Amino acid sequence: MKIAFIGLGAMGFPMARHLAKEHEVLVWNRTAEKAERHAREHGTRVASDLTECANAPVIITMLPTSSEVDETVDKLIEHLQPGTLWIDATSGDPNVSRETAKRLARKQVAFVDAPVTGAVVGAENATLTIMIGGSAEDFERAREILRINGKTIIHVGDVGTGHAIKVLTNSIMGATVWMTAECLLLAKELGIDIRTALAVTNAGSGRSNASENLLPMRIADGKWPLVFKLAHHDKDIRIANSLSHQLHASTPMLALTQQLFSASLHQLPENADYIEVAKIVAQMNGTSWDA
Amino acid sequence: MKIAFIGLGAMGFPMARHLAKEHEVLVWNRTAEKAERHAREHGTRVASDLTECANAPVIITMLPTSSEVDETVDKLIEHLQPGTLWIDATSGDPNVSRETAKRLARKQVAFVDAPVTGAVVGAENATLTIMIGGSAEDFERAREILRINGKTIIHVGDVGTGHAIKVLTNSIMGATVWMTAECLLLAKELGIDIRTALAVTNAGSGRSNASENLLPMRIADGKWPLVFKLAHHDKDIRIANSLSHQLHASTPMLALTQQLFSASLHQLPENADYIEVAKIVAQMNGTSWDA
Amino acid sequence: MKIAFIGLGAMGFPMARHLAKEHEVLVWNRTAEKAERHAREHGTRVASDLTECANAPVIITMLPTSSEVDETVDKLIEHLQPGTLWIDATSGDPNVSRETAKRLARKQVAFVDAPVTGAVVGAENATLTIMIGGSAEDFERAREILRINGKTIIHVGDVGTGHAIKVLTNSIMGATVWMTAECLLLAKELGIDIRTALAVTNAGSGRSNASENLLPMRIADGKWPLVFKLAHHDKDIRIANSLSHQLHASTPMLALTQQLFSASLHQLPENADYIEVAKIVAQMNGTSWDA
Amino acid sequence: MKIAFIGLGAMGFPMARHLAKEHEVLVWNRTAEKAERHAREHGTRVASDLTECANAPVIITMLPTSSEVDETVDKLIEHLQPGTLWIDATSGDPNVSRETAKRLARKQVAFVDAPVTGAVVGAENATLTIMIGGSAEDFERAREILRINGKTIIHVGDVGTGHAIKVLTNSIMGATVWMTAECLLLAKELGIDIRTALAVTNAGSGRSNASENLLPMRIADGKWPLVFKLAHHDKDIRIANSLSHQLHASTPMLALTQQLFSASLHQLPENADYIEVAKIVAQMNGTSWDA
Repeated sequence: MKIAFIGLGAMGFPMARHLAKEHEVLVWNRTAEKAERHAREHGTRVASDLTECANAPVIITMLPTSSEVDETVDKLIEHLQPGTLWIDATSGDPNVSRETAKRLARKQVAFVDAPVTGAVVGAENATLTIMIGGSAEDFERAREILRINGKTIIHVGDVGTGHAIKVLTNSIMGATVWMTAECLLLAKELGIDIRTALAVTNAGSGRSNASENLLPMRIADGKWPLVFKLAHHDKDIRIANSLSHQLHASTPMLALTQQLFSASLHQLPENADYIEVAKIVAQMNGTSWDA
Repeated sequence: MKIAFIGLGAMGFPMARHLAKEHEVLVWNRTAEKAERHAREHGTRVASDLTECANAPVIITMLPTSSEVDETVDKLIEHLQPGTLWIDATSGDPNVSRETAKRLARKQVAFVDAPVTGAVVGAENATLTIMIGGSAEDFERAREILRINGKTIIHVGDVGTGHAIKVLTNSIMGATVWMTAECLLLAKELGIDIRTALAVTNAGSGRSNASENLLPMRIADGKWPLVFKLAHHDKDIRIANSLSHQLHASTPMLALTQQLFSASLHQLPENADYIEVAKIVAQMNGTSWDA
Repeated sequence: MKIAFIGLGAMGFPMARHLAKEHEVLVWNRTAEKAERHAREHGTRVASDLTECANAPVIITMLPTSSEVDETVDKLIEHLQPGTLWIDATSGDPNVSRETAKRLARKQVAFVDAPVTGAVVGAENATLTIMIGGSAEDFERAREILRINGKTIIHVGDVGTGHAIKVLTNSIMGATVWMTAECLLLAKELGIDIRTALAVTNAGSGRSNASENLLPMRIADGKWPLVFKLAHHDKDIRIANSLSHQLHASTPMLALTQQLFSASLHQLPENADYIEVAKIVAQMNGTSWDA
Repeated sequence: MKIAFIGLGAMGFPMARHLAKEHEVLVWNRTAEKAERHAREHGTRVASDLTECANAPVIITMLPTSSEVDETVDKLIEHLQPGTLWIDATSGDPNVSRETAKRLARKQVAFVDAPVTGAVVGAENATLTIMIGGSAEDFERAREILRINGKTIIHVGDVGTGHAIKVLTNSIMGATVWMTAECLLLAKELGIDIRTALAVTNAGSGRSNASENLLPMRIADGKWPLVFKLAHHDKDIRIANSLSHQLHASTPMLALTQQLFSASLHQLPENADYIEVAKIVAQMNGTSWDA
């Protein structure tokens, strides 16, 4: 099948590579060099211009935020064919997605939001978890395409629910990172070796993705790679809070998480990784994670 | 070896049973019937009175809080033999433990704090994680005894660090339960099936002990068994906050966790299970977890 | 001058009465009886229908939220005369106000947001504080009209800033009410007479509008009149949080205030007064304000 | 009457000066130069050594914390006369005060805690508010002495309640400073002149000691004098949280206030004034109060 893949960032690049094994993939990227390299290395073809993507029966967007998706829709909408399926793999905003779906529906174009989780390694190894919002029928079409990228593909509900559950689970992760950092810092101040504290946490009740996979490399080994930009994580947590606001909910821990992450964003360097919030936890205590 | 085991509650009862396979176990319990049943069923012997326990070279306490341990020390201290090892498996207060250790040291009695995690099922199956604070030598003596109760036995550091890391990891668990409940409630309000929301969480970044093991039975299946009393969990979180206070730390998420748990304790029935705080999350939103 | 006054609620009714002393006032209210009573008692005239209000060179709206203002604009906009001044005294949303101002500007109608503070007693006695957002020229026109209603009329800045500063100051009040209630409840639990605690607070550093004017009647005298609906106060605090969100700010105390107020709203009766959040403070502590 | 006054800091120096108008005042200070200057300028007499103070029938302590008071009691207790009245004007810890009162009672020495509020200017002008904990009889004795220092002298309750209400009201002030700073910073970001925002706040519902007296000089005029050390304010807020903890209360806003103040303390210079927390509010938003 012919697939247009728009957005060859850290996640999109390997996702498009896997798709090219089974499909005829047309790629487009804001900085053209990346698209050219993708074509050269992985047998895809570079779209002559963005609008050429409108010809494909399946369009996949993997962009920084829903704003860029929206702009892309603006540019393509006049050229789209009825029956096209638009899969938005961006970590986006459910409210924007619902509006986008409505706009596309008027052109008889189907839309599903299909954000992914599993990080770059998951995109590389095609082991992503993919959470899809859309009709049952559109979900099946999307799954048939995306099964090559992920090992767990879940139909979450109507359009927007994929994006919603993504930001909610990323917010849980954010809170868990922060809380675990607070408590491990206390353990450290009490003279407990940080590796021991992590081992106990992971053998017990406080175990989480944060304690098992995210924090050890940073706070125990002192390696702070850029895996996922704090600016993007903060965006997700902010969207989750917007959902809470719309629902007129009371979610004090989600709210505190956002306040602390946004404060961290304002204080860390521009390209900070999301786990570097643990450095702000230390700064608020006048200390650091150094041994 | 002769071991005195004091406190045959939900955790202590099966722990003493396993120890009796290798050791001569003397048991004592505030309500004598339980001790008698233990002796009858598991080949242990009931202490004639509490002070008889002072004759054993190893004493294990498994009591509700450090206060009860303290009272037990008061009653036994005049009768203890030099060289005795006192293992306190209670989920206790590190400050009290340090004082207790000093008092016992004056009688040449060694003390380790050895709280456990893994719940009743872990005690029954002897798969507990045991975190021990004390000298390296005392740790070795304690491990040699407790290896029959647990599969992971960790030397955390000096006296008190076992209790400290226990309350810190239980606090992480508390925060994670609350935060996950907030976000899953939002998912539910957005029309996402709660089982789907849990499945996505557990397949992705927000995964934790809370999302995998604690919440599903309650919020998805509507079963709210009493596994661990909220009053005890709240006690642990309060001790963690005391540690933060002593260190003059800034731990806003730990603080909020305590405030929300204590507020829940004041509003739920006396015998509420700790996961019932999720009901307060719903109450604060004017809703419930019912489908 | 001819003035159309739309919205004769607890605040609007007396405001329109004062304006009638100097102006020819046309009144309109959703429930017509109130408008008829106003005309009968205060020499105003009831608009035959809402659109008649469009003829007045000055239109004042005093409605529950910006939504009702928006609907009113929808109904009148085709009938408005160039040069008209629209004064919106509603406690509204600055973002909506800016949009409204733009829509009206296309009809050459000037718009100022002019929310008031001082409660019903301030409206009755014409001692309101009025905070106005709009151009310097429009501010002067509005002040010339509203001087009969208030003793302090402040030009805050551009359109929307009146509404913005109103919700921000109301949020400060909300936080102060909650925090003062927390601390006075602790004083009470410590055995300090609540009147003494209030007297000390008001003679010292913790003094505020909340401690001097709002809390004493309720927590000391047990009188909980409905002065300002919690639903309206919660709306203001929610708008303040939206502003924080738009600015990508980190305002943890404002965020916590909203979470606690929204949780209170979900737990108190529908017509609860805003100071009844103090009852939730007590509920969270398993107690009450009763002596 | 003969009065020993111990502690001639910014508050104690002028208090002892006023007392010397009616009484024979013996002064003692850790750095002797201050005591000598006091004697020279205000007709008091320097104690030959600390224990000489024990001869006075009235002893007043005005020290940084209850620890210094405790040490002073240690040094004097063997020399005290039955019937002596010890007035502790320190901003202290109610739990320590209760213990101190018990120790002194065994020597038939009466104790009242009598912290003051009103800042240095209040001490200079003898317009302090003084809140006294102790028996009715001891309160009367203390008031007869202190009436020369304050205009409002309130009997709060038993020993410790003076210190308790002091830290509670100072905590309210702390929360109000922080919350007002958050909201005024938002106003500033929205383009509202900071003086206008303050004027509106002070004319309306959000008015407090913080908005009227504490913030304007700093955030509007850019003057950040050292009036009250943040370290002392943080100590007060921490004592208030300890009281909450002892009462097993749920006070989320008080808790957040402490976390934010302690984090500020860890990030500001050692001699920071308490209102400099407003700089941390700005830092968390990546901005400053500069125009």
